[in-house]
Amino acid sequence: MASTSKEMTLDDLFLDTLKDIYYAEKQIVKALPKMAKAAQDPNLKAGFEKHRDETDGHIERLEQVFELIGKPARGKTCDAILGILEEGKSIIEDYKGTITLDAGLIAAAQAVEHYEMARYGTLRTWAQQLGYREAAKLLETTLLEERATDQTLTKLAEAGGDNAKAAA
Amino acid sequence: MASTSKEMTLDDLFLDTLKDIYYAEKQIVKALPKMAKAAQDPNLKAGFEKHRDETDGHIERLEQVFELIGKPARGKTCDAILGILEEGKSIIEDYKGTITLDAGLIAAAQAVEHYEMARYGTLRTWAQQLGYREAAKLLETTLLEERATDQTLTKLAEAGGDNAKAAA
Repeated sequence: MASTSKEMTLDDLFLDTLKDIYYAEKQIVKALPKMAKAAQDPNLKAGFEKHRDETDGHIERLEQVFELIGKPARGKTCDAILGILEEGKSIIEDYKGTITLDAGLIAAAQAVEHYEMARYGTLRTWAQQLGYREAAKLLETTLLEERATDQTLTKLAEAGGDNAKAAA
Repeated sequence: MASTSKEMTLDDLFLDTLKDIYYAEKQIVKALPKMAKAAQDPNLKAGFEKHRDETDGHIERLEQVFELIGKPARGKTCDAILGILEEGKSIIEDYKGTITLDAGLIAAAQAVEHYEMARYGTLRTWAQQLGYREAAKLLETTLLEERATDQTLTKLAEAGGDNAKAAA
């Protein structure tokens, strides 16, 4: 992981966290088509497909940030996203073929969105503090997209009530 | 994990997710004193201590929800929180003794808060849909506390800028 041969600074922490979310986004972009395939509600399916395309854009923006700070774009294993996606996989397995699956998929996706919102919020603040103005703008743009996706998912979760009640 | 001998419903998903966050809260309440001990800024230290006490209350509320739905309070391993806390532990190890450690602790804590916000938001919505009005209120109360903690952490992250800049 991070080198400890020198005093670690906010620049090191920024780079470490950038690698963490870069790895996470690459895992998410692989998981989203599986979630889209599993979704029953056409709106949810379309939402996952749209977010898959957006995630390609997030990866590109992260690559621009790496370039802006003069570092190669590299991921580092992110245990958090692996755990979050693992829980999503369990839900697909346990609730496959039931009317409740969509509610589970939305919950799994919102856990992913919240992880990303935490990381992008942190990275944006650090980029501002480190004087990386361009990078801060790119990170802010992605943060707003993740927030919008989370809000769309909340609406779908709330609208799912009748369906869910009918099945309960 | 969940039984598959019958059609799984939103009631099952609600219980599964309740067990997930119950396990997560019990891990968090063990991690917070370590984070408080590692923190340098007295405000951050006090914030972690306060949130440890709040987390005791969150666990009690979850036990009330289990009781309201007539199920024993039991946790089930939550890979997501284990991954998130593992990343926090790495930050404490890598940045120990540096002026950057507090920024890393705040970032780790915000990832925890966002996981909880996702789960409590989901559980509150499902409780409403299932007609568990008392449970929905309890879950909403905790959700609001998690959000307030996240906002406090954001302010501390933003205020940390000068310190961080001096060290960069």
